Amino acid sequence: MDLASRVLDGDRRAVARLMSKAENEAPGVKKILAELHNHIGNAHIIGITGPPGSGKSTLVDKLTLEYRKQGKTVGIIAVDPTSPFTGGALLGDRIRMNEIALDKEVFIRSMGTRGHLGGLAKKTGDLVKILDAFGKDIILVETVGAGQSEVEIVGTAYSTVIVEVPGLGDDIQAIKAGILEIGDIFVVNKSDLDGADETARELDAMLDMNSNNLDWRPPILQTRAKDGNGISQVADALNDHMVHMKETGILYKLVRARTKDELEEIISENIRSYIDGTHGEEELEELVDRIMDGELDPYNAAEIFLKPFTG
Amino acid sequence: MDLASRVLDGDRRAVARLMSKAENEAPGVKKILAELHNHIGNAHIIGITGPPGSGKSTLVDKLTLEYRKQGKTVGIIAVDPTSPFTGGALLGDRIRMNEIALDKEVFIRSMGTRGHLGGLAKKTGDLVKILDAFGKDIILVETVGAGQSEVEIVGTAYSTVIVEVPGLGDDIQAIKAGILEIGDIFVVNKSDLDGADETARELDAMLDMNSNNLDWRPPILQTRAKDGNGISQVADALNDHMVHMKETGILYKLVRARTKDELEEIISENIRSYIDGTHGEEELEELVDRIMDGELDPYNAAEIFLKPFTG
Repeated sequence: MDLASRVLDGDRRAVARLMSKAENEAPGVKKILAELHNHIGNAHIIGITGPPGSGKSTLVDKLTLEYRKQGKTVGIIAVDPTSPFTGGALLGDRIRMNEIALDKEVFIRSMGTRGHLGGLAKKTGDLVKILDAFGKDIILVETVGAGQSEVEIVGTAYSTVIVEVPGLGDDIQAIKAGILEIGDIFVVNKSDLDGADETARELDAMLDMNSNNLDWRPPILQTRAKDGNGISQVADALNDHMVHMKETGILYKLVRARTKDELEEIISENIRSYIDGTHGEEELEELVDRIMDGELDPYNAAEIFLKPFTG
Repeated sequence: MDLASRVLDGDRRAVARLMSKAENEAPGVKKILAELHNHIGNAHIIGITGPPGSGKSTLVDKLTLEYRKQGKTVGIIAVDPTSPFTGGALLGDRIRMNEIALDKEVFIRSMGTRGHLGGLAKKTGDLVKILDAFGKDIILVETVGAGQSEVEIVGTAYSTVIVEVPGLGDDIQAIKAGILEIGDIFVVNKSDLDGADETARELDAMLDMNSNNLDWRPPILQTRAKDGNGISQVADALNDHMVHMKETGILYKLVRARTKDELEEIISENIRSYIDGTHGEEELEELVDRIMDGELDPYNAAEIFLKPFTG
């Protein structure tokens, strides 16, 4: 049986293998992913982000337990974009709660950038797709921080949870402002710490100023993830958000836009390999040398390269 | 006179206009940038990154004064990738030191992501190219933090300075590990604070473990940028690094690799516009609809799209 069929058939090892192929951009992986395309769209994809130390991972673990209690299957993708050269060891080495690590209905994958800069959001999207086709009801994408890469990564989700902790102070206000618009649900974790109410009030005030999303007012919830406090409310809010996305047609638009992106990417890639097959690398290197010698500029070089093809 | 010629002629307003075009990916801007290509390669491009509050901007300002004292002209690009939705207002609003802001031989540009995710490193590269062609001797690219986007942004530089401050503690060790390999020079700023020597020692120990770069051992310098202390040593170290890059041929390889990237990008873009000109958007949308209806997968859709073209 081919890899796509094995994934659709529920083979965990096939899932892991396909994920590695997707991460390494192995030849032929695009075709396999495309074959999965008609089997996706059933999962609720949830992005979870927040600063280091906010207890995101604990929240993800407890949320997983909550979903399992509801009889739902769960996939977790933990992404660490702050560690471009260490291969995501930070997350990879972290030991997940025993309860969920041993649960056959939970699939956990850590992802670092393994030395390759860029394309992390794209690869996260591929892994999400695999878990979706694999039949997971809930897919949790967890990422550290709130920089541009993180925003792109959680951009693969339908619902985004921003985790904050009390008393982080003014230093992160700027970052807060940046992520405010991507949050569908805000969680003030470690709510037993001083200043939890104040942090919630601050977030509330910031959301008041942010009028971009009139249809959905992001709820601000307080949790103590360590003890499981407030977790079911987060799951409820996520469910409400998904219902909202479906009813308003936003979900359809979102999925369609992503499908278009994917198609355009495959088209560009196919064109490149077509061109490479006809003349390719050697001529390219020669043109680069001529640019380095000052004979050509890159624009003219591109025209020369494409001449046999555009006529 | 066209925009490229005006930039080469030293027209500051033309520089600002071309930069805006590059940031907005205006039509035709690729061609203009390509025309500048044979006039670049003379600047020393320096990336400066470090956590918020480390005094990077002050360091950049003082380093600028130092270079001006040496009779060199300076371009500064300040990038804020943590703020994808606010358009880089944080940096844009910051008022640079009067001395350098009024100096006609210093060109300062702030860059946010202006709502567009992705491509920030690419755009930074374009602005660097413009300043290089404009004739600046030194180009300083300053960016906050040490996430993936920041690493990519400083990746446009020949020399990278990592700024740290004493006593940031264990929390950022993970981040440090991630940026260790991109640093050519390490600066412990605010060296009057407690723990400066310790931070320098820690960095030194971490560099000892990092054997990736045997030819160049990154120096660790202490500065008090506010008072100008240690700044000339940073400039000296940067000069040494540039000499090293030239003598070992690393610089040539680096520039060649970037030139190749640029050529490939122009080729891909030209192919896309060629394809769009022949059939294009309408057919693409129709194919997306057919994928959404479950009639096609994206891979087959791409083949249909390309059929008239690949034959």
